[in-house]
Amino acid sequence: MKVARENDLVFLMGKDRKSFIVRLEPGTELHIHRGVVKHDDLIGQPLGREVQSHLGYSLLALEPSTHDLILDLKRTTQIMYPKDIGYLLLKMNVGPGSRVVEAGAGSGGLTLALARTVMPTGLVYSYEVRPDVLNLATKNLERLGLLPFVEMKERDIKEGFDEVDVDALFLDLRNPWEYLAQAHAALKSGGFFGAILPTTNQVVRLIRALPEHGFSAVEVEELLLRRYKAVPARLRPMDRMVAHTGYLIFARKIE
Amino acid sequence: MKVARENDLVFLMGKDRKSFIVRLEPGTELHIHRGVVKHDDLIGQPLGREVQSHLGYSLLALEPSTHDLILDLKRTTQIMYPKDIGYLLLKMNVGPGSRVVEAGAGSGGLTLALARTVMPTGLVYSYEVRPDVLNLATKNLERLGLLPFVEMKERDIKEGFDEVDVDALFLDLRNPWEYLAQAHAALKSGGFFGAILPTTNQVVRLIRALPEHGFSAVEVEELLLRRYKAVPARLRPMDRMVAHTGYLIFARKIE
Amino acid sequence: MKVARENDLVFLMGKDRKSFIVRLEPGTELHIHRGVVKHDDLIGQPLGREVQSHLGYSLLALEPSTHDLILDLKRTTQIMYPKDIGYLLLKMNVGPGSRVVEAGAGSGGLTLALARTVMPTGLVYSYEVRPDVLNLATKNLERLGLLPFVEMKERDIKEGFDEVDVDALFLDLRNPWEYLAQAHAALKSGGFFGAILPTTNQVVRLIRALPEHGFSAVEVEELLLRRYKAVPARLRPMDRMVAHTGYLIFARKIE
Amino acid sequence: MKVARENDLVFLMGKDRKSFIVRLEPGTELHIHRGVVKHDDLIGQPLGREVQSHLGYSLLALEPSTHDLILDLKRTTQIMYPKDIGYLLLKMNVGPGSRVVEAGAGSGGLTLALARTVMPTGLVYSYEVRPDVLNLATKNLERLGLLPFVEMKERDIKEGFDEVDVDALFLDLRNPWEYLAQAHAALKSGGFFGAILPTTNQVVRLIRALPEHGFSAVEVEELLLRRYKAVPARLRPMDRMVAHTGYLIFARKIE
Repeated sequence: MKVARENDLVFLMGKDRKSFIVRLEPGTELHIHRGVVKHDDLIGQPLGREVQSHLGYSLLALEPSTHDLILDLKRTTQIMYPKDIGYLLLKMNVGPGSRVVEAGAGSGGLTLALARTVMPTGLVYSYEVRPDVLNLATKNLERLGLLPFVEMKERDIKEGFDEVDVDALFLDLRNPWEYLAQAHAALKSGGFFGAILPTTNQVVRLIRALPEHGFSAVEVEELLLRRYKAVPARLRPMDRMVAHTGYLIFARKIE
Repeated sequence: MKVARENDLVFLMGKDRKSFIVRLEPGTELHIHRGVVKHDDLIGQPLGREVQSHLGYSLLALEPSTHDLILDLKRTTQIMYPKDIGYLLLKMNVGPGSRVVEAGAGSGGLTLALARTVMPTGLVYSYEVRPDVLNLATKNLERLGLLPFVEMKERDIKEGFDEVDVDALFLDLRNPWEYLAQAHAALKSGGFFGAILPTTNQVVRLIRALPEHGFSAVEVEELLLRRYKAVPARLRPMDRMVAHTGYLIFARKIE
Repeated sequence: MKVARENDLVFLMGKDRKSFIVRLEPGTELHIHRGVVKHDDLIGQPLGREVQSHLGYSLLALEPSTHDLILDLKRTTQIMYPKDIGYLLLKMNVGPGSRVVEAGAGSGGLTLALARTVMPTGLVYSYEVRPDVLNLATKNLERLGLLPFVEMKERDIKEGFDEVDVDALFLDLRNPWEYLAQAHAALKSGGFFGAILPTTNQVVRLIRALPEHGFSAVEVEELLLRRYKAVPARLRPMDRMVAHTGYLIFARKIE
Repeated sequence: MKVARENDLVFLMGKDRKSFIVRLEPGTELHIHRGVVKHDDLIGQPLGREVQSHLGYSLLALEPSTHDLILDLKRTTQIMYPKDIGYLLLKMNVGPGSRVVEAGAGSGGLTLALARTVMPTGLVYSYEVRPDVLNLATKNLERLGLLPFVEMKERDIKEGFDEVDVDALFLDLRNPWEYLAQAHAALKSGGFFGAILPTTNQVVRLIRALPEHGFSAVEVEELLLRRYKAVPARLRPMDRMVAHTGYLIFARKIE
């Protein structure tokens, strides 16, 4: 039976759905609102079981999913949500071995999902112009052991991307229409372009600019995630939901 | 510059958004509603450009994405949609190297996405009790060159799964609550369980049964995909949409 | 017990949910896809019961609701849906005795709901520039006996409205931002303004123009209606739904 | 020009969208988080203009809509939302002159909308078994001057309704399937039945019971309201929304 080992990431989920992700280190303690959990109580034990804080608060010790890691990231910027990331990976054909460019890196949520999808043979090129944001993203990826699959670059992408012939390129920034020539130069012929934007005004500007810069097959979509209270005798949607994360825009580079 | 070669899959998208996926074979022709396209006009040429049928109908020749391949599958059963598949891959932590069980295979839509995600070192174990359905799924995966990453099994899963300690297990069948002991036996400790169900009655039965069979952290969610008309001067949602593909249920195996 | 009488409207709903609305006339027949129904079989009988066509096809004979009447209207234009109409009646405070202006009349769907809400002491002033459309709306309202509560006016509203101090004013036309001075002149101080628009570009233009023309408290909303298959053992959303009828814009006239 | 008078209801909306509804009384003051507003500053003045608190905080003085009144109600129970109420009024054909039964009254939100729709010739019969809740609803309706159009009854509806031949009957309570015989007895032939329920389990029970008690044409629907930030340069949905208010169930009494 597989057991949790030093350096493994562990997802601890409390009864009240509060959760914590830790990297196991002997002798270390996790201090939470309901007591202290010793890493040594987890190391060498299988996951999928309950552990107790010293105050008797129960937590389920689990392997974190990509979904959990994204939502747990330290962030200073607006996050991209797993519902959007999972969908764009399929739309943009990201898989093992893909070479993918993204800008900006933000807190690294999309970067981490891309890295886990293209590894071990693919590579993610992640551009970010703000040094402090780049620094945070780098730390986030390092903590997850994903830096070997990502090249982080501090750069204003107005100057262009270093790469050519990449399979896919995603822009998560305020004004993607200003970088379409650069995006076109980086993508392979037929390559996958994607972007996320919060306002309809930005979407209009982007989809107007895309055909003028050698992109076709433009699509605009949005995803709504509705969560339910998982109570067998009273199955019903949660009272409130996230109503908007962003519009997803997809296109293909043409010659 | 990369060019399309014999045996490559090509996605042909017409002006009217009608699309076709072909595997390139010298001397072969694609007959569509608006004329004939010769594979020889595509072989040796880069993708991301327009080709003409002999009647002058323009098609964009593109690399198909996982999304396109799923929607293009020959099917006799209800399909799983990319929005749901992309999300569950992140929720269930499927990545390169994962070992994943699914049942039933259906037409192979989820199977193909799983295979493209776990390859080259992971493996998908796909169970299906109906021989004709299994046959179709196998043909679909073979055509996409994905069979090396999938073990197809004709089996009533009441008899259990052959595998143990798998990372994730997904049930896409009418009565998943009847196979939870078998699912529990196949999963690793803490492993990821997922299912999709069309009716609320089925969801109630499943989430009642899960805790009785050693599963915890039960979640019920659904995703709605809304597509927009990508016209810059008249940005608006499409008139109609798919209102329901299924409820997604997630849980974790506990000891 | 109340019975159906000559001149009453009756809603006939077939087993397959096909439905028909007729005004009862002695000696008249309704010819449908499954036979003939005689009005005389309905006159003098209570509603809420089944009738048979001469081919034995069963129909439920019911009183039509405002909802049913709207959806049944003969139309040449895009319809306004009951979900939007019901909501705007409450948002715009339309009730018995209200004086309401609308333009354009279209096929009269909103007009009929307004008329049924303001009657018998209120009045609807309905403007429409296209004579054929006005003619259709007038016929639709006449058939429902609602013309006493509506003044139909063939007019380009650029020339302004005849009324002043109306309680509420609704614009269902392509370019409502061009008529805001006229709308402001017609409304009472603090009066309710509403509009429906299909594209985000139009919404942007309208909400930019509203504050420039003496309107405040601007709101933009949309309503999504999701229908379920009402089968107790298999409760689930319908497969498809209307994804977009229009954005609703509300504002208040200020001095 | 119409001016606000003693006893009028006025809706005061602050810059931060905080709002207050008051009934004007000479000499009275409204104390809010940003100062004091004197009723005497409103009486005799037209609505649709700004007033200032003594601390200089601006509020827009407006006539309240039915929508505003519902959301402003003092409540101890779950509220029914205007989106649902507006829709059911059209579905259940409630109009001037209708006779409508509802149970339970709750805080009176639906009651007030029904009363404003059926007045002056119609009547609402509102049942509520909890004396304190009935008391609150009665006060709410009295404050709005709607009591002449409502009969409030403290009663366990297991004992049945006093009325017969009512046009429409709406149940907003936990277990509507237990009162269907009583509802059938109160409705006219073909009359409109409606209910709202939060969980799918309750919906299943109700739609199973309806045909067994002489109801037909059963429908289950839900409405989602999505609000937008009404900023012309940045039009976008609000970040969060109410994800669930309840499932609406409609049916018709048959003989």
